[in-house]
Amino acid sequence: MTTSDLPIVRLRPKANARAIRHGFPWVFANELVTDRRTQGLAPGALAVLEDADRHPMGVVTVNTGSKIICRMLDRDPTAKIDEAWFADRLTRALDMRSRLFTDPFYRLVHAEADGMPGVVIDRFGDCAVIQPNAAWADVMIEPLSAALASVTGVTTIVKNGTGRARSLEGLTEETVTLRGAVDGPIPVPMNGATYMADILGGQKTGLFFDQRPNHAFAARLSQGARVLDVFSHVGGFSLAALAAGAAEGLAVDGSAPALALAEQGAQAMGVSDKFATRKGDAFDVMAALAEEGQQFDVVVCDPPAFAPSKPSLEAGLRAYERVARMAAPLVAEGGYLALCSCSHAADLSKFRTASARGIGRAGRTAQIIQTGFAGPDHPLLPQLAESGYLKSLFFRLDP
Amino acid sequence: MTTSDLPIVRLRPKANARAIRHGFPWVFANELVTDRRTQGLAPGALAVLEDADRHPMGVVTVNTGSKIICRMLDRDPTAKIDEAWFADRLTRALDMRSRLFTDPFYRLVHAEADGMPGVVIDRFGDCAVIQPNAAWADVMIEPLSAALASVTGVTTIVKNGTGRARSLEGLTEETVTLRGAVDGPIPVPMNGATYMADILGGQKTGLFFDQRPNHAFAARLSQGARVLDVFSHVGGFSLAALAAGAAEGLAVDGSAPALALAEQGAQAMGVSDKFATRKGDAFDVMAALAEEGQQFDVVVCDPPAFAPSKPSLEAGLRAYERVARMAAPLVAEGGYLALCSCSHAADLSKFRTASARGIGRAGRTAQIIQTGFAGPDHPLLPQLAESGYLKSLFFRLDP
Repeated sequence: MTTSDLPIVRLRPKANARAIRHGFPWVFANELVTDRRTQGLAPGALAVLEDADRHPMGVVTVNTGSKIICRMLDRDPTAKIDEAWFADRLTRALDMRSRLFTDPFYRLVHAEADGMPGVVIDRFGDCAVIQPNAAWADVMIEPLSAALASVTGVTTIVKNGTGRARSLEGLTEETVTLRGAVDGPIPVPMNGATYMADILGGQKTGLFFDQRPNHAFAARLSQGARVLDVFSHVGGFSLAALAAGAAEGLAVDGSAPALALAEQGAQAMGVSDKFATRKGDAFDVMAALAEEGQQFDVVVCDPPAFAPSKPSLEAGLRAYERVARMAAPLVAEGGYLALCSCSHAADLSKFRTASARGIGRAGRTAQIIQTGFAGPDHPLLPQLAESGYLKSLFFRLDP
Repeated sequence: MTTSDLPIVRLRPKANARAIRHGFPWVFANELVTDRRTQGLAPGALAVLEDADRHPMGVVTVNTGSKIICRMLDRDPTAKIDEAWFADRLTRALDMRSRLFTDPFYRLVHAEADGMPGVVIDRFGDCAVIQPNAAWADVMIEPLSAALASVTGVTTIVKNGTGRARSLEGLTEETVTLRGAVDGPIPVPMNGATYMADILGGQKTGLFFDQRPNHAFAARLSQGARVLDVFSHVGGFSLAALAAGAAEGLAVDGSAPALALAEQGAQAMGVSDKFATRKGDAFDVMAALAEEGQQFDVVVCDPPAFAPSKPSLEAGLRAYERVARMAAPLVAEGGYLALCSCSHAADLSKFRTASARGIGRAGRTAQIIQTGFAGPDHPLLPQLAESGYLKSLFFRLDP
C-alpha cells in the first residue's frame, strides 16, 4: 500500500469499527476523534479514515458540520478520487440501468448504494440532474460532471441544490445549469405514458422515477377503469393508467404548475379527452367528491411524506389513516385502492396498520394484493436497507 | 335478522372480540366456550359465532381438534353456505385474476384473503386443483366443486389433500380426481416460458405460481446471461430467463422428476440446446461448481422453507446464510444474486440480514436492487399480513 497525501482522521475506540468494516458507510460525529486539525478540515474535504489502532480503513469525505461526519468513498485507502474514479462508479451504475430499462430515463445514481454517498443523479435522455446532498459532491462537481458527460453522453447537466438533505449538511440552495441548456419541460417515456418533467422549476429533479413499478401495477388494474389520482404531481398514476386503457383519469393536486404539466403529458399521449384535473387541497377535494357521490374503480393516493422523521411519526400515521379513511368511500364495489408512503419514519408494518385502520373506519373491508417499493434504479445498501422509504400498498375493497 | 338453524358457539369474555369484529378471521381454542355440545360438533361443522354477550358475529366453521377452533366464513350470521355462496366468492376471486392475467393460469383462491378460510385453489386452464387445508372444505367439497365448475368453466377438478396444514386440522392425506380426468403434465404459460405442471404427482399443486413477479424480474436481468437456478423445481427461474433471452440456463435440484419436467418445458419452448440440469444436493452442487471455478451472471437460490415455524428460526437463518455464502462465489463480477425464502418464521428483516451476512462472509459486497413478494393472486388479509411468507431479494454483487 502506498501512502496517501490526504489528511488522516481517526475513529475513537468506542466507534463501531466492525460495522464500518462490514460495509456500514457512515461515521457519526461522536465516533470520530475531532482534534483541532480535523475541525479545521473544510466541509467536503477528503481524508483517510483510520481505526483506533491506526489501521487505514479507506478514503472518506469529512464534514464536521454534519451529524454524519464521514462518508466512505472507497475502501482502498490509496484510492484517488478523480474523474477516472467517478467514471468507474458511473459505468457500474449505468450497466445495471441499461440492462433493466429500454429508454435512458432513470435514477442513474442513488447515493450510498451506488458508491457515491449523498449524490443523486437522475437521467432524462440527453440531460442529467445532479443533486449534491453532501458537501464533497459540491466540491467535486467538476470531475463528476466531466465523468458523467463522458460515460453517459449527456449534453446537458443541471445541478439541483434544493434538497432538504442539504440543510443538514450546512449547504445552501442553488440550481445551476452546468453544461448545455434546458429548453422547457422534457417528455419522459415511462410505462407507455409520457410525462413532462420540468427539471429546472419542478419538485426534486422534476419527476419521480421511484414509483415506476407501482405505476405499472396500477396500470394493470386500470383497463376500462375510472381512475382517481390524488396527490398526482405530474400525473404519475393517472397517465400510466390511461396508457394502459383506463376509461377516465382524474388528477388532483395542490400545485397548478404540476397539473399543467400533467395536462401537457395527456396531450402528448393523445388522451386529453379522457383526462381531467382538479386543483385543490387533496383532503378537501376527496371530501367534495364523496359529497358528490362519485366513485372510481381505482383510487391512488401518493401524498408527500407525512412522517419524514421520528418526531413526526405519530402525527404522520394519523394523516395516513385519514387519507385511507377519506379515499375508501370513493372506491367502487370490488375496486382497488393504492396507498403510498414516502416517509422514512413510517415502516411498512406501521404504514399498513394505519392504512387498514382507515379503510376499516370507512366501513370497508379489504385484502392486500400487492406491496411495492421503489424500483431497481433506487438500490439500497443492505446495511441501510431499513431506510427504504417508499411503500405502496394495493388493496382490493370488498362491497 | 332471521334466526339460523345452525348450532351456536360462544366466545369467552376474555376473547379478543374486538379484533374479530375488525376483521381478524380466527378464534383460537382458548377463546371459545367449549361445552359438551360444542365438543360434540363434527370437524368442519358450521355454526353461528356469538360474542360473550350473545350478539351474533357471523357464520363460522368449527374444528375442535384444531388450535384455530373457528374460522369466519361470513359476517352475516344468517348466511347460508351453499353452492350459491361459493359461486359468489369464486366470482369475486376470478374477477381480480382475470383483470391481472391474460392466461387462465393462477392461484384462484388464496384462503382467508379470498373469503374461503383454509382453501387454496390453483387454476391450470381447464383444470383446477383444490387444496382443502381446513376440515370444512372437505365437508363442503361437493357444492364447492359444483360452483368452481360453473363459475370458471373448468372441466377437470382435482382434490390434493397432501398439504402440511392438513395434519394440524387432523385431516388425512388423499388425492382424488373429482371431475374429468388428468392426462399427463399440463403446459403452463407464464412470463413467456412454458412450465410442465404435474398436478397429480408434483409438489403442492404441481407448480408454484407465487414466484411469478420474481421470475419476471430475474428474466429482465438475464438477457445474454449465464443463469444458475438452484433449487429449481420445474425450472421456474431458468426457463423464464431463457424465454427472456438468457444465453444458458443450468437448473439444479434434488428431484429427478422435477428436473425431467423442467427439461420437457425447455423442449416445449425450443430452448433445450441452452438448458442443462444437474441432479443433486444443492449445497454439494454449489460446492462442486465453485471447485470447477464456474461463474454465472445471474444466480438464483429458491430453497424450501428452512424456517417454517418459530422453533426452527435460528437454524433456518443459519441455512439461509449458508446458501448466500455458497452462492456468492458463483456470481460473476457485477452479476446478480437472487435469494428467496418461503419461511413464515423468517421475516424480511431477518432474512435480509442473514443473506447479507452470507454474502459478506464470501468476501463480496452488494447492493439490494429489488425486494419482491408473492404475486397478486396470493392476496393477504391486512390482519394477517405479517404472515406473508415469500420474500425474494435481488442483490447486485460488486467486483
